[in-house]
Amino acid sequence: MTKKAINNPERIVDEVIEGLIFAAHGRLTKVPGVRAIMRTSIEDGKVALLIGGGSGHEPIYTTYVGPGFADAAACGNIFAAPSPQIIFEATKAIQRGKGVLYVYGNYEGDVMNFDVATEMAADAGIEVKHARTMDDVSLPKGESRRGIAGSYFQVKIAGAACASGHSLEDAQRVTLHAQQNIRSLSVALRPGSLPETGQPTFTLGEDEIEIGMGGHGERGVARRKMMPADQLVDLMMGQLVEDFPLKRGDRVALLVDDLGATTMMELLIVNRRVRQILDQTGVTVHDTRIGPYLTTQEMAGFSITLMRLDEELRHYFDRPASNESFLKP
Amino acid sequence: MTKKAINNPERIVDEVIEGLIFAAHGRLTKVPGVRAIMRTSIEDGKVALLIGGGSGHEPIYTTYVGPGFADAAACGNIFAAPSPQIIFEATKAIQRGKGVLYVYGNYEGDVMNFDVATEMAADAGIEVKHARTMDDVSLPKGESRRGIAGSYFQVKIAGAACASGHSLEDAQRVTLHAQQNIRSLSVALRPGSLPETGQPTFTLGEDEIEIGMGGHGERGVARRKMMPADQLVDLMMGQLVEDFPLKRGDRVALLVDDLGATTMMELLIVNRRVRQILDQTGVTVHDTRIGPYLTTQEMAGFSITLMRLDEELRHYFDRPASNESFLKP
Repeated sequence: MTKKAINNPERIVDEVIEGLIFAAHGRLTKVPGVRAIMRTSIEDGKVALLIGGGSGHEPIYTTYVGPGFADAAACGNIFAAPSPQIIFEATKAIQRGKGVLYVYGNYEGDVMNFDVATEMAADAGIEVKHARTMDDVSLPKGESRRGIAGSYFQVKIAGAACASGHSLEDAQRVTLHAQQNIRSLSVALRPGSLPETGQPTFTLGEDEIEIGMGGHGERGVARRKMMPADQLVDLMMGQLVEDFPLKRGDRVALLVDDLGATTMMELLIVNRRVRQILDQTGVTVHDTRIGPYLTTQEMAGFSITLMRLDEELRHYFDRPASNESFLKP
Repeated sequence: MTKKAINNPERIVDEVIEGLIFAAHGRLTKVPGVRAIMRTSIEDGKVALLIGGGSGHEPIYTTYVGPGFADAAACGNIFAAPSPQIIFEATKAIQRGKGVLYVYGNYEGDVMNFDVATEMAADAGIEVKHARTMDDVSLPKGESRRGIAGSYFQVKIAGAACASGHSLEDAQRVTLHAQQNIRSLSVALRPGSLPETGQPTFTLGEDEIEIGMGGHGERGVARRKMMPADQLVDLMMGQLVEDFPLKRGDRVALLVDDLGATTMMELLIVNRRVRQILDQTGVTVHDTRIGPYLTTQEMAGFSITLMRLDEELRHYFDRPASNESFLKP
């Protein structure tokens, strides 16, 4: 039973939302009646951006709401998709007459609920388009790929596109273009635990790791014995680049994501090796993010995400964005 | 034995520095020959700010180097003070003729080594002043107090003061004024582990927590049975406010620090309760930071830090600062 600083397990999501709104100092507010947060002030005439997914992966999705990011986040229960009702209420609250773009991870429950909400929105005269995140190369190319830490990059690009005065069609097109250029691969070292029960989300041997394992213990690429960081990064980068051929002169944004309990020390050591490999292959790293962007409770491990930046994606990536809450210098 | 993504344990600090410099994209560089990082470009005629301490607590201190923050960070081995030689070389590298301010935690090894470096600097004609961090209210008021997460606030104020064109004396005075107005209290839920050996840094029973425990297992205020988050925060806030009377109308900056493996979910639930208490007592929270600012490997637990802001401290707190690396929106 893993100790956690919580109160009533059934109140976790509500209390997280309260804590987040306090941290935003008036810039975020609750969507009335449902578990969703939104910007206090949304510009008229913009395509609205709604993101969301299961709770327990903070900072995603709640934190990526703010100018240049999403306009609202719909919060499901721990590791469960938000209900169609939550998504629909948030959609109504943020739409400004130009339609709403949904960005969320490609998981069965999320796909179903965002689809139902789309029909509810259509009945209410609100046009909705989707751009699911599906960056995990541990699964075969195609519709089955789940969204992991690269979701952060996709939300950032979508936010910039929606803030640029584009039509819903154009904002979706730019976001799908980002989706096609984002690849991630993760490694699990130790599980996190379910906050309701304190029980681990999966099991791994004392000296085992699993490359490509999903955040909740989903099947990965290969279970291996623990190995030195450089060897592990070499393996992961090989797998990433096999899926995603990069050529000399390409430019990428890089994210080394902490899955929950990985030290910054380890993430920096990983970043060092990733950069040595990319430098050798003549790929330029345009900018770097390191830290907890998408977590699964106190799971140990990390993921490496590359987003290939052409001129268009670079333009949107470099647009300012503020997450209105917590992690600031 | 806790698995960590490292290579040779003796190379950890060097590899962390390499990874950090990669992440800063040209804005940070290594101090030649020693384990310290510095800004690539330091303004002429400013008082230089040097911070530092043991490694393994990332993001502190290495990350708080950048415009408006420190000019360099000296890195000791894991949980060990940087040597006088490292501090002295960094001092020489960043001084611009107006003296150097040292900000570091009030731990015996650090105090000794920064003192020796001060003598070395004096011999080289460089004037140095100190402002140790000592925010931990779990120890009696006075010289014995160690610096914990409130060190971040003190570095931020020092950085702003040094960037404002002040003399060394004035920069020190402002920073000591901040020191007098910062209070922190931590709680440990689970230990981290030493990266060299994989062994835990201390032991706590399955259902035990320790309020006021230091990052490495130092004696705290009280060992208790695990309790709900609100009750725990009430206890901690009581202890904090006993040491640090706040009155209706006071304004504070608030930090809820993750000691390493605490979920953002928990930190937000804690933030919610802290704000309920402060709102009730008529204390205004000016701004909030939540996340990993000072960690001890994958230790679970958190600390609450309050910095009382008068007009002067508010001015410096609101100055822009960039950490040049990793955690960005």
